[in-house]
Amino acid sequence: MKKPIIGITMGDPAGVGPEICLHALGHLEVTGRCVPAVFGDHKILHRCAKQLELPLHAPTIAYDHLNLEADLNEPTIVDVPAVDHETFQPGQVGANTGAASYAYINRAIDATLAGHVAAVTTAPINKEALSQAGVRFPGHTDIFAYRAGSKRWCMMQYSEEITCTFVTVHVGYAEVPQLLTTDRVLEVIQLSAENLKYIRGRKPKIVVCGLNPHAGEHGLFGDNEEERVIIPAIETARRQGMNIEGPLPPDTAFLPRKRKTTDVFVCMYHDQGHIPVKALAFDSAVNTTLGLPIIRTSVDHGTALDIAWQGKATPASLYSAIRLAVKLSGQSS
Amino acid sequence: MKKPIIGITMGDPAGVGPEICLHALGHLEVTGRCVPAVFGDHKILHRCAKQLELPLHAPTIAYDHLNLEADLNEPTIVDVPAVDHETFQPGQVGANTGAASYAYINRAIDATLAGHVAAVTTAPINKEALSQAGVRFPGHTDIFAYRAGSKRWCMMQYSEEITCTFVTVHVGYAEVPQLLTTDRVLEVIQLSAENLKYIRGRKPKIVVCGLNPHAGEHGLFGDNEEERVIIPAIETARRQGMNIEGPLPPDTAFLPRKRKTTDVFVCMYHDQGHIPVKALAFDSAVNTTLGLPIIRTSVDHGTALDIAWQGKATPASLYSAIRLAVKLSGQSS
Repeated sequence: MKKPIIGITMGDPAGVGPEICLHALGHLEVTGRCVPAVFGDHKILHRCAKQLELPLHAPTIAYDHLNLEADLNEPTIVDVPAVDHETFQPGQVGANTGAASYAYINRAIDATLAGHVAAVTTAPINKEALSQAGVRFPGHTDIFAYRAGSKRWCMMQYSEEITCTFVTVHVGYAEVPQLLTTDRVLEVIQLSAENLKYIRGRKPKIVVCGLNPHAGEHGLFGDNEEERVIIPAIETARRQGMNIEGPLPPDTAFLPRKRKTTDVFVCMYHDQGHIPVKALAFDSAVNTTLGLPIIRTSVDHGTALDIAWQGKATPASLYSAIRLAVKLSGQSS
Repeated sequence: MKKPIIGITMGDPAGVGPEICLHALGHLEVTGRCVPAVFGDHKILHRCAKQLELPLHAPTIAYDHLNLEADLNEPTIVDVPAVDHETFQPGQVGANTGAASYAYINRAIDATLAGHVAAVTTAPINKEALSQAGVRFPGHTDIFAYRAGSKRWCMMQYSEEITCTFVTVHVGYAEVPQLLTTDRVLEVIQLSAENLKYIRGRKPKIVVCGLNPHAGEHGLFGDNEEERVIIPAIETARRQGMNIEGPLPPDTAFLPRKRKTTDVFVCMYHDQGHIPVKALAFDSAVNTTLGLPIIRTSVDHGTALDIAWQGKATPASLYSAIRLAVKLSGQSS
């Protein structure tokens, strides 16, 4: 069976992206299940390899050659020159590195839409650098959704230990309540059901979290968001045949015995799900976007500027993300 | 050395409180370090013991006798009759059981203020039942703070694995931002520093969480609550000599390597800290209130009505709460 080609974006050049990509290009954990194609800057990758004394044997092709070549069949660097080497400094992000990380993403999306790669796995970008570069998207998920023209999508954090999907993600704490609607909650429930069924090979058990402490305790806390918004979505999902429970108090939803019987937790806001995912599956969780025609998974960590280019970053989360990309691409398991 | 007398409130009669109190009255884990005095209903305790075939040898005294007796020197039931036995049903809470649980708490507080017991450990109450009974306090913390006349207090969730203190607790999700002030954040930092120093025997390492995803990422998300409210409190605390860091992104604050080096996490809202505490220390965390003249610790779980009076409830969290009460009472360790 032919191994799928997985596009891997290099992430912010100043962060840990380049070094974890170097690991991925040479490790059997990756090359045994797919053909990795790193979308990034080959000069930066070679500089990083030299500095950290890491091997780098992958050939480089220009992005435009991707269109001319036959299918890739070995680990490859797809060169996307996008940052000035004179001013770029490892550990220091800015508009220049933000713009470069955005270019790698867009080229990888182009290649996916053109059918050259089966799925994309993304190394970490820096949201502040992206913003400084004038990019109006707060993160990967939004970029991919926009490029794919998707109106119906959500973020998922996947791990063996705990998997969460998100009704809202990269918005301020105070903006969350007004963004919660029954339609949106139901949409995320449905995306969760569809995708977890595919991953698990059976009907998944879905748990929906409340918004307020103790899920509002029947109106004691909050503005009845549970009764007004969340419960109607759960009831519709149940009528559609889903195995679903909620809204549960957010703090007890993630107890060990509950995690064992739950395939996916539908969370109302970023930290409601990211806190338990990172506390419990800190180096194995994978970030992915459900509902897109482009399969996209991501590492579960940031650019880690304080340890970047020092050989301290572990590629474990990147490997997990690549494994899930291969799985979702349906060409292998 | 004389063992301290720890008052244990029985909690909501319909919940798991009675059975875990029966365990505490007879277990060396408890009786080896303190003299437990259960404030509750001796008829309910005897009915529960009979139903679950648990031993119950502790004598009963009326609350008023507490004033006349010499110090208690054996496990004792302090009888506070407060619910009609004809209408009371295990597993079903209501105004009657809420009112009874409130009575046990108030008698235990009276006994503490009168010097008869050294500290109080509380079994779980039901906030909805309390509200139905016309009690205007949302939980134990607020009752104890009111009775003690304290203006400066905060909740702490304590465990060996992770300890959190809270700037806000039992309020709706949407109310949190307007309740955050620099003075209140600083107050909770100071209470955390004072108490953890006492528990750890050295200057504690304090981590303060942000409010927004990624701690706002320098204003990208949210309304600059980190810059406007939280950072000024941290800077003041640092000038006062504290070992303090933050505001950290709430999801990465609780990573395993961060937990190892942190004595206490100052959290902005209920679920920010309760989610990781329950996910990581589900049966050993203890709830306590800092800043009160009354020492008070509590189990970390609710009334668990679905398993109440069935012999399924574990007293582990109650034992942990009693251990911390003994520790904080300073009469033993």
